[in-house]
Amino acid sequence: MSDLAIIRDGGMLIRDGKIDIVGASKEIEKNTRDAEVIDAGGKVVLPGFVDAHTHLVFSGNRLDDFERRARGETYEQLAAAGGGIWSTVEKTRASNDVDLLAQAKKHANWFLRCGTTTVEAKSGYGLTVEDELKILRVMRRLNQETRLEVVPTFLGAHAVPRELRESDYVDLVINEMLPRIASERLAEFCDIFCEYGYFDIEQSRRILTAAKKLGFKLRAHVDQLTNSGGAKLTAELGATTADHLEKTDEEGLAALKSAGVQPVLLPGSVYALGSTCYPLAREMIDAGLAVVIATDFNPGSSPTTSMPMILSLACTQMKMSPAEAITASTINAAYSLSRGDKIGSLEPGKLANFSIFDCEDYRELAYWFGFPQTHSVYVQGERVF
Amino acid sequence: MSDLAIIRDGGMLIRDGKIDIVGASKEIEKNTRDAEVIDAGGKVVLPGFVDAHTHLVFSGNRLDDFERRARGETYEQLAAAGGGIWSTVEKTRASNDVDLLAQAKKHANWFLRCGTTTVEAKSGYGLTVEDELKILRVMRRLNQETRLEVVPTFLGAHAVPRELRESDYVDLVINEMLPRIASERLAEFCDIFCEYGYFDIEQSRRILTAAKKLGFKLRAHVDQLTNSGGAKLTAELGATTADHLEKTDEEGLAALKSAGVQPVLLPGSVYALGSTCYPLAREMIDAGLAVVIATDFNPGSSPTTSMPMILSLACTQMKMSPAEAITASTINAAYSLSRGDKIGSLEPGKLANFSIFDCEDYRELAYWFGFPQTHSVYVQGERVF
Repeated sequence: MSDLAIIRDGGMLIRDGKIDIVGASKEIEKNTRDAEVIDAGGKVVLPGFVDAHTHLVFSGNRLDDFERRARGETYEQLAAAGGGIWSTVEKTRASNDVDLLAQAKKHANWFLRCGTTTVEAKSGYGLTVEDELKILRVMRRLNQETRLEVVPTFLGAHAVPRELRESDYVDLVINEMLPRIASERLAEFCDIFCEYGYFDIEQSRRILTAAKKLGFKLRAHVDQLTNSGGAKLTAELGATTADHLEKTDEEGLAALKSAGVQPVLLPGSVYALGSTCYPLAREMIDAGLAVVIATDFNPGSSPTTSMPMILSLACTQMKMSPAEAITASTINAAYSLSRGDKIGSLEPGKLANFSIFDCEDYRELAYWFGFPQTHSVYVQGERVF
Repeated sequence: MSDLAIIRDGGMLIRDGKIDIVGASKEIEKNTRDAEVIDAGGKVVLPGFVDAHTHLVFSGNRLDDFERRARGETYEQLAAAGGGIWSTVEKTRASNDVDLLAQAKKHANWFLRCGTTTVEAKSGYGLTVEDELKILRVMRRLNQETRLEVVPTFLGAHAVPRELRESDYVDLVINEMLPRIASERLAEFCDIFCEYGYFDIEQSRRILTAAKKLGFKLRAHVDQLTNSGGAKLTAELGATTADHLEKTDEEGLAALKSAGVQPVLLPGSVYALGSTCYPLAREMIDAGLAVVIATDFNPGSSPTTSMPMILSLACTQMKMSPAEAITASTINAAYSLSRGDKIGSLEPGKLANFSIFDCEDYRELAYWFGFPQTHSVYVQGERVF
């Protein structure tokens, strides 16, 4: 993860939206006299960031929760005051697809401006068959109508809706939601919030097993607030990723390693919740795990679309090196979305998704914090910012 | 600090670079048919941020330190590897005024883009008479040649230069630097780094007392790494501000309160150093202190020009409310720079320094983190971003 294979005075030839040649600028210029030239002299060119964990489609914001949390109120107090995840579910249910799409497009534009060209996006603020479908269809349109690539994940098991008993909702997810979403091909991955008070290990196993049978690849929110053995479950089921992992122990890490599950670390939510319990990134990297970092963009616990901010958090709070943080937010993230052959690095044959940053050293992306130094962003060779 | 006196559907009439009328848009529009209209509908308009603690003029960066710190190396190890403050002093001494000004202009532009229109700037990377003068003269030119207002502070006592003994350097500061800077009117404030291994209480008292006699107002870096009684010293000397205060105890806070010293809190450096020891903002506000928050922009411990990022840190890590954070970064900061009558709020007679943000609620500035939502920035009524 530490070797970025930097090419100084490098260049790329782009043809039909793909990278054709990568190498020394001088060599490339010799053979390409007719090409349009984008001069990135004195700047850093990187693959577009791949954000492998977001909750992109929702309605409204959680400003009241934010203010209450600053006052020291607990999550229970926020929920009692009409906040928490349920408030976003209510607003999202009440929104039509046009309004949801409009808000998601605004946020998609923020992602692009921060240098991100692919995001994974989870449903999970609907929690009824129709509302989950509505959210996933908004993602499909977002993919079609913006330049941000959106990889859809079904997260029906984000929370138990107030109108149903836990076991009834698990049945609904398994018997109605999953088959419907599979038949409409609305999601590539199935995810679950495996946590005390949400879905326990047995319920998580049931849902993820059903999803796997229907052809979904698996991701899971595990061990965020408590170490419930979630990491081990993802290993048992052959999930693609195990996300959060703030409370995972060594045994859990060993399980991920032996099963080839990629850890997706979300320091933005640790930061925004005012916690200091960051996941053990150093230990994971040293154990040889292909660590991914992501924004966890969502209105409650991580209101940021900025991967450069996540790079800063990775280096200052999780002791990752700048190079490791870049790897974790590009090529490792691309593999975690089954797109390691198409995006995440600047190599011949891959999509020409890249960003140019107003700095001379890639480490500056993580060093100067709080404002992205994005100069311009390209998707399939076309400038989108 | 919690009352922002927000005007919904508000407007301002600007004349000759100053605010003439503030009130309801409809009322203002009636009487001003010939005025050029800036439509900020659906957006938030705030006074330009006032950043009351920066080290704006320096050469180079500290990327190697940043990378080493991510690896877990201590400050002592960084210094032994040729890093630390001394590396910035060497680079700054070796730079001529043209290069220093060019770099400072780049950073001044970053401040403006983040919505800041006034910064305090400290010398302190020269540590010889000529190099300190060079830095302060660069600030003067920055003030003249950019739209960012720069309030200069002399911080000769930032560190003891390697070529001198402590006591000899204190004498140099008192006998040569201070009189020279006073006679050339190059700084309004005198500051000092009062800390174990830098300048002790007695040296700090000598320097600040000498500065006061020459007409300088006083600021001081105190109680950052250890509680050395620095806060009490600022109270004793009637300083305008006491900055950092991460380790100040209740006795220190009481001293600040009784002497009317304003605390300047710098959460950016706590964050970037990977520490969790934030100053006791809540206790200070509850005690009635006029708290200021600032970026501490510098290449070693706080590489950020983004006041919105500081708002985020204030709310998520120091439990300040969004309104308190806005007050601390505008009007309170203006008073700490003796400019409470000219900037820091949108009131008739003040300079028309303001920013427009792409959001509907001021709390969004602190909520969405990692990228400033700046739409446009005005200094004395003219658009500068």
